Amino acid sequence: MGLFTKDIKTMDDLFVHQLGDIYYAEKRIVGALPEMIDKASSPELRAAFESHLGETRNHVKRLERVFEMHGAEAETVRCPAIDGIAEEAEEVSGEVEDKQVLDAALIAAAQAVEHYEMTRYGSLIAWAKTLGRDDCASVLEETLNEEKAADEKLTSIAKGGVNRKAA
Amino acid sequence: MGLFTKDIKTMDDLFVHQLGDIYYAEKRIVGALPEMIDKASSPELRAAFESHLGETRNHVKRLERVFEMHGAEAETVRCPAIDGIAEEAEEVSGEVEDKQVLDAALIAAAQAVEHYEMTRYGSLIAWAKTLGRDDCASVLEETLNEEKAADEKLTSIAKGGVNRKAA
Repeated sequence: MGLFTKDIKTMDDLFVHQLGDIYYAEKRIVGALPEMIDKASSPELRAAFESHLGETRNHVKRLERVFEMHGAEAETVRCPAIDGIAEEAEEVSGEVEDKQVLDAALIAAAQAVEHYEMTRYGSLIAWAKTLGRDDCASVLEETLNEEKAADEKLTSIAKGGVNRKAA
Repeated sequence: MGLFTKDIKTMDDLFVHQLGDIYYAEKRIVGALPEMIDKASSPELRAAFESHLGETRNHVKRLERVFEMHGAEAETVRCPAIDGIAEEAEEVSGEVEDKQVLDAALIAAAQAVEHYEMTRYGSLIAWAKTLGRDDCASVLEETLNEEKAADEKLTSIAKGGVNRKAA
């Protein structure tokens, strides 16, 4: 992005910019999940993270497909939001000693990531539709549905015992 | 937070830590909204931001009430997540020339903030209930409901014309 020129001129530019942002974020999450799997104690939570790692790798590929469908190059755009969310997750989990409390903190950290993705995919889908790219919107919707399901799964793991054990 | 000791030992510590995180975030948002109001062109969007600024000031006060109810000091904890989300909002909006496209970008930025708050309040409410603090949970729920309503309002403004005008 230029420092002296304004590089986003159209909705199409904004759409491609935001695709690059979430592309960066998904790749960052692929890198962060293995550490979260290592830190988790609850077998159910580990399994949920492992399954979401597989899904996230697929989200990266889906984004590459959307870039291609839209005739744009698949390029990451540095995303300070996901960097901040990841930094905070590392900071907090580094402060927790008790394994059960750590599980609760890991769930909250993962849900912050899911919510970030949900809001970004939500905007991207709305913009794709406005741009007449229902084909791109429907690919992005597959991912959005998986992010929502991952978030709900984490809520059910928290309510199902992780929070109670930690308290 | 100590560098050599792990300061979060119990769910109660985690709850208070996270309260400090969202307390920092809400104050940061009170500081950021006036600039977003200035940048917005759609009268409906400006009105929504203005109304949310009033709500956000109230969220800060509600958090101070929860700290007090819980017998903890109201202290902010630096929150890299909201710093990153805000930094990204400033970066993107600085890149957009067209007023209508800027409105679409501002809505997306504000929704990223709302989603961050929704996930944090969601965790805080669940933890408060596990800790037997239904009284704190119900105060936090008032804010969560306002964040959800603000997010829905932004979606309806986007769908109601901002995205179409921008495309």
